[in-house]
Amino acid sequence: MQLNYYQREDQVLLAVDCIIFGFDKKNLKVLLIKRNFEPEKGKWSLIGGFLKKNENLDEAAARVLETLTGLNDIYLEQLHTYSKIDRDPGQRTISVAYYALINVDSHQFDGIQIDSAKWFKLKEAPDLIFDHNEMVEKAMARLRRKAMTKPIGFELLPEKFTMRQLQNLYESILGKKLDKRNFINKINSLDVLIKLDEKDMTVSKKGAYLYVFDKDKYEKKVEEEGFSFKL
Amino acid sequence: MQLNYYQREDQVLLAVDCIIFGFDKKNLKVLLIKRNFEPEKGKWSLIGGFLKKNENLDEAAARVLETLTGLNDIYLEQLHTYSKIDRDPGQRTISVAYYALINVDSHQFDGIQIDSAKWFKLKEAPDLIFDHNEMVEKAMARLRRKAMTKPIGFELLPEKFTMRQLQNLYESILGKKLDKRNFINKINSLDVLIKLDEKDMTVSKKGAYLYVFDKDKYEKKVEEEGFSFKL
Repeated sequence: MQLNYYQREDQVLLAVDCIIFGFDKKNLKVLLIKRNFEPEKGKWSLIGGFLKKNENLDEAAARVLETLTGLNDIYLEQLHTYSKIDRDPGQRTISVAYYALINVDSHQFDGIQIDSAKWFKLKEAPDLIFDHNEMVEKAMARLRRKAMTKPIGFELLPEKFTMRQLQNLYESILGKKLDKRNFINKINSLDVLIKLDEKDMTVSKKGAYLYVFDKDKYEKKVEEEGFSFKL
Repeated sequence: MQLNYYQREDQVLLAVDCIIFGFDKKNLKVLLIKRNFEPEKGKWSLIGGFLKKNENLDEAAARVLETLTGLNDIYLEQLHTYSKIDRDPGQRTISVAYYALINVDSHQFDGIQIDSAKWFKLKEAPDLIFDHNEMVEKAMARLRRKAMTKPIGFELLPEKFTMRQLQNLYESILGKKLDKRNFINKINSLDVLIKLDEKDMTVSKKGAYLYVFDKDKYEKKVEEEGFSFKL
């Protein structure tokens, strides 16, 4: 049965916009696209698309991400819905922002599928269209909070990583230098990494041991005693 | 300029639904409304409304709340946007859920303005239409998290409250009994309450001292040293 107490003109366009974070072992990056249509043609933008009739918002965000990256198994989380009346000068559009974490080192990742897209170091990211700067800021705040309470950072790391890379990641997310010895002690006390018998020889003559995240152990610990990554 | 790469049929109805929490000094409650139209006529529902052309989502949620409560200065926070294709069997509707915290003891509050609305203890709340149960659960999870890190609970308390009422509130939010002595010690160590020279004589012969929340002190503490309500 159709309801009749609303009018067709109450309808709005609903978009998703994705804040895509990646990590290149040194810096946290965000994936942006150069806009090739008006308004704001030529400016940098988040990657977005409109919600279709046959999908929910999570599916719309996953579709947009797959188009851009070829990946269909990305960490994706709804962030916030933006609705300022004039946020898009073209036509009133409400946008649901999602943030995604990509392991750019994954063998499934062939790189970006769209020429006008580019990774930027967060610190060097250009000004974005509409309210997209605000979206990125909110995503960073969420990432900071999540990274303290969940092992979310491992979504951004290669499967095998050095302690230095893990520290680089947390420093990028938290936006501050961490003391190396304290960091290593803290991570070791969490007891969720497996140290491999294998070194990354590209970082120094001596090399640096590689680690993997022990997801099973982590989940068991959470169940038994709770868990916090607070550094 | 109008964009033309989308179609009018991509448009959707956008609603807001509000999870309204109140606290009667003993129990955490949620405000529900009996639905008087199809589909699901006669069932209990969150309070909602459609987004209008001339307002953003925050304004829409505030408008819905004011219609129901007469209050226009309510703590209100966007929660999550729900978009399952068939969530509303009437017509595809996307809903942005907000949660609100009401001080039901405030002198500005004249009670509910709509006859079909009613407060329910959370534990005794009926089954709700659509995905509204899911919304209430998510709001509770958010409230639990927030109550541990921000003094958000004071939005629900009367201006002057007893230590027992504060403990009741935290027990309601966290869904577990707290040890009285530990609770009082923890709250005292936070040092953000002012003990008044005034007692609530309705609770016992001896009465119980009343407290107020010292917002200025709290804000100063947050600025200087951060803050956590972890109990």
